[in-house]
Amino acid sequence: MKNLLVAQSGGPTAAINATLCGVIEKAMINTAIEKIYGVRNGVLGILSEKLIELKPALFNTTSLQLLCQTPSSALGSCRMKLSDWKENSLEYEKIISVLKKYNIGYFVYIGGNDSMDTVEKLSSYCKAKNITDIKIIGAPKTIDNDLCETDHSPGFGSAAKYIATTFTEIACDCHVYAMPSVSIVEVMGRDTGWLTASSALARCNGHVSPDLIYVSEIPFDIEQFLEDLQCKLSERMAVVVAISEGLKNQEGYYIADAMQNQQTDDFGHKILAGTGRFLEEIVRHEIGCKVRSMELNVMQRCASHIASACDIYEARLLGNAAADRVINGFSGEMACIKRTSNKPYQIEVVFSPINKIANRVKFVPREWITEQGNDVTHELIDYVMPLVQGEMPVTYHNGIPVHFKL
Amino acid sequence: MKNLLVAQSGGPTAAINATLCGVIEKAMINTAIEKIYGVRNGVLGILSEKLIELKPALFNTTSLQLLCQTPSSALGSCRMKLSDWKENSLEYEKIISVLKKYNIGYFVYIGGNDSMDTVEKLSSYCKAKNITDIKIIGAPKTIDNDLCETDHSPGFGSAAKYIATTFTEIACDCHVYAMPSVSIVEVMGRDTGWLTASSALARCNGHVSPDLIYVSEIPFDIEQFLEDLQCKLSERMAVVVAISEGLKNQEGYYIADAMQNQQTDDFGHKILAGTGRFLEEIVRHEIGCKVRSMELNVMQRCASHIASACDIYEARLLGNAAADRVINGFSGEMACIKRTSNKPYQIEVVFSPINKIANRVKFVPREWITEQGNDVTHELIDYVMPLVQGEMPVTYHNGIPVHFKL
Repeated sequence: MKNLLVAQSGGPTAAINATLCGVIEKAMINTAIEKIYGVRNGVLGILSEKLIELKPALFNTTSLQLLCQTPSSALGSCRMKLSDWKENSLEYEKIISVLKKYNIGYFVYIGGNDSMDTVEKLSSYCKAKNITDIKIIGAPKTIDNDLCETDHSPGFGSAAKYIATTFTEIACDCHVYAMPSVSIVEVMGRDTGWLTASSALARCNGHVSPDLIYVSEIPFDIEQFLEDLQCKLSERMAVVVAISEGLKNQEGYYIADAMQNQQTDDFGHKILAGTGRFLEEIVRHEIGCKVRSMELNVMQRCASHIASACDIYEARLLGNAAADRVINGFSGEMACIKRTSNKPYQIEVVFSPINKIANRVKFVPREWITEQGNDVTHELIDYVMPLVQGEMPVTYHNGIPVHFKL
Repeated sequence: MKNLLVAQSGGPTAAINATLCGVIEKAMINTAIEKIYGVRNGVLGILSEKLIELKPALFNTTSLQLLCQTPSSALGSCRMKLSDWKENSLEYEKIISVLKKYNIGYFVYIGGNDSMDTVEKLSSYCKAKNITDIKIIGAPKTIDNDLCETDHSPGFGSAAKYIATTFTEIACDCHVYAMPSVSIVEVMGRDTGWLTASSALARCNGHVSPDLIYVSEIPFDIEQFLEDLQCKLSERMAVVVAISEGLKNQEGYYIADAMQNQQTDDFGHKILAGTGRFLEEIVRHEIGCKVRSMELNVMQRCASHIASACDIYEARLLGNAAADRVINGFSGEMACIKRTSNKPYQIEVVFSPINKIANRVKFVPREWITEQGNDVTHELIDYVMPLVQGEMPVTYHNGIPVHFKL
């Protein structure tokens, strides 16, 4: 009998605890597993032996249900990249010694790109050192949806649902006054525009907003942006713009940095203005109409109260499948979603070698962005639409959602 | 037979359309009313005769139901203050002529402070000019909850529910890493701290956040703020702070302005940094830990998908009561909520003379703020708690909420 260890890593999402739940559920009913351990703060917590037994903490279905409606990582997280074990194997030796001490035979690591790098390094280390009794598998999570091999990643659907919903509400808010106005909404995504692109779903229920969508994948040109705005302002009073936080110019520099570096002050001006706030200032100066910028900030990744039921279901499923796979002796893989049909939406869980995933990035395909680079095509909308379907039942107490705490 | 006119004004809320719904419902079943008119963009729309008949647009209960789950003002809004009619009566004459042209006997104006100023001026003008066949009444709405005479205002409860919910989610998000961090969340409220104070409800379900709450009513001292932070950081890793956008220093200047005026650049630095962003910079400089600021921005006033059922119910009730009252011949009043009991929560609708409301501000009582000025007392929580109770059923299509459009 071996024990199973599960950990969470990277930026929080609304779905990562559902994956944790899936792992626990599978491990609970598998007779090959004696104890289920969680570890606080990812691999960092393994190094400091912050392991906790999960069965006593999650002994009933109410706890598991609450866990699924709790955003962020119940086990805590870390942003730690292991060094190359060929150069420095100290951390690896420590991790393996802790895993052996707790009789861990199976380790499920839930996370994004960096976490899959850890899965790759640890599993290849075990293989090279002929450590055959510790199997390591990855389960995906990222609101950014930038993991390769999987059709999409848990966390993305809920973030997209929040973003699309919020854009419909912002659209209602922005259209009330009889005066020209520009509202710039900054969405997460340093390198990829999946989340920003999802704002287009707001138009599916009759809203005209967002009027313009600029994603990280397309070099951003301020002159063209101002022209696009003027064009939209000639059609309607209120223009709502979705932008990725990571907009870069033709030379590959973040646009807020590139422009502001020309005039710095001694108070960290560069830090003070994000991309949206910076563009707000440009619009105020160049167009002169009422203009406002806003950031969806961490709310877009932790708004569990409006999680996508599809997303939570799939997150749980992947946790379940990853646990099953690793218990069956597979190592160095990640559980992936394969979309077998779009209408009706159908998926399968498949497994991909981790080296095809770690340190790679999945961008929005160029053909899903309009030629002008200021909107997305219907292919993008068709792709995201199934992922935001359904609402989760939420337990409220005192008028606000109840969360699970370990 | 006379016609009834209804208009909306001021900043959007999640509940103002429920009040509109209440007005329409009452007018529809009253045989003294022939036509129900709405006007776009408040009094501004009366001046330009943008009246529309509402019965055809809202002919069924489905439309009214969707109207109640639609944020912002379905009729549009304006921010217009009438001049004193004793000095310039031109606008008044024009308004009255339009009302007479459309045979309006009853005018319900839904709005906040500025709108109640309009109700006061228009009704006193009518009285002075002996125009007895046009009755004008106000129905309250404001997320800021700063209207006098009424226990609270529709829109506030839903905003408070969104804020408390979002703080619980942000709390989950902020506590994942094993490193000291400060998160500063800026909440709306230039002059009053009702919304910021409502963040305290997040603690009612076991969260420790927000750790510190600073409202507009209390002069803000940066040194004390840094001391408070250091104290909290000595107790736990992640500290979450709620601040009002309108924090002012001892001299009454907005703190971001006061400090930044000392060093301006030619690019509008002052505009680039809001209160939260400004404090983020101070914390980064003075404490040096991981720090982040975020604004709840317009989302806090338009997040209908998580509206408070209590708020929406009361908003509708006040619209209903205001319409009833004005049809019964009363003028120059506002429909108010009187809390007759807190446990169990019970209210009555009463009416107050508009001159006791217009241009006055209701502040958070000093005794509901802790002596140190960095938190609120249980009296504040007891006051807000009933107002965030209950969730509204929301109609979704394409995975996102459906909104009503006129």
